[in-house]
Amino acid sequence: MTFDPASLQFNEAGLIPVIAQDAQTYEVLMLAWMSAESITRTLESGKVTYWSRSRQAFWVKGETSGNVQKLVEMRVDCDRDCLLVLVEQSGPACHTGRRNCFYTAIQGGEEVELMRPMV
Amino acid sequence: MTFDPASLQFNEAGLIPVIAQDAQTYEVLMLAWMSAESITRTLESGKVTYWSRSRQAFWVKGETSGNVQKLVEMRVDCDRDCLLVLVEQSGPACHTGRRNCFYTAIQGGEEVELMRPMV
Repeated sequence: MTFDPASLQFNEAGLIPVIAQDAQTYEVLMLAWMSAESITRTLESGKVTYWSRSRQAFWVKGETSGNVQKLVEMRVDCDRDCLLVLVEQSGPACHTGRRNCFYTAIQGGEEVELMRPMV
Repeated sequence: MTFDPASLQFNEAGLIPVIAQDAQTYEVLMLAWMSAESITRTLESGKVTYWSRSRQAFWVKGETSGNVQKLVEMRVDCDRDCLLVLVEQSGPACHTGRRNCFYTAIQGGEEVELMRPMV
């Protein structure tokens, strides 16, 4: 079946959550959002392109920082209301300079930092 | 720092997206949602407990199917608006009987099924 982004379930803002996972290590890097047009741009360009909710604009990941995400494969979930993108991540995925955004663990009720920013 | 679920950024419905990942294989299993109370129940019980948006009720994953998710570790992202739970998954995570929900890939513009339901 030909994939049509319009067949997905978007939220009231016209967005769908997207999990980015490192295609090599399977590390979960981040979660961001895409519009239908973001999805089309991502598939056509091979550059993962989110929709920035704060800037209300397309967000070609790494366009300014150089920390691009090259699309390896896009997957759709059973309910068609979430996407998974397998990517080749250049440098840190997180704006804090860390490899991924999930660097804070809850251990015994305390927040524990798992990872420092990359140099 | 002591973790307080109230310190997270919930959406207008009082929910936060949660990525479930297999703690052993790093496979991304599913995405679902938690309320602040779901988070507290998950941490206290060790049983991953979402908020079902369709049923508007707590959803102890696997409570009826037996396909429970035992919490290994909960992590918070940099913006505090997404959670990652590392879990021990019993059986399939997906309601279709598949190991994970992301069994449909987009390849060359076509939808391709990557995985069949578990027996």
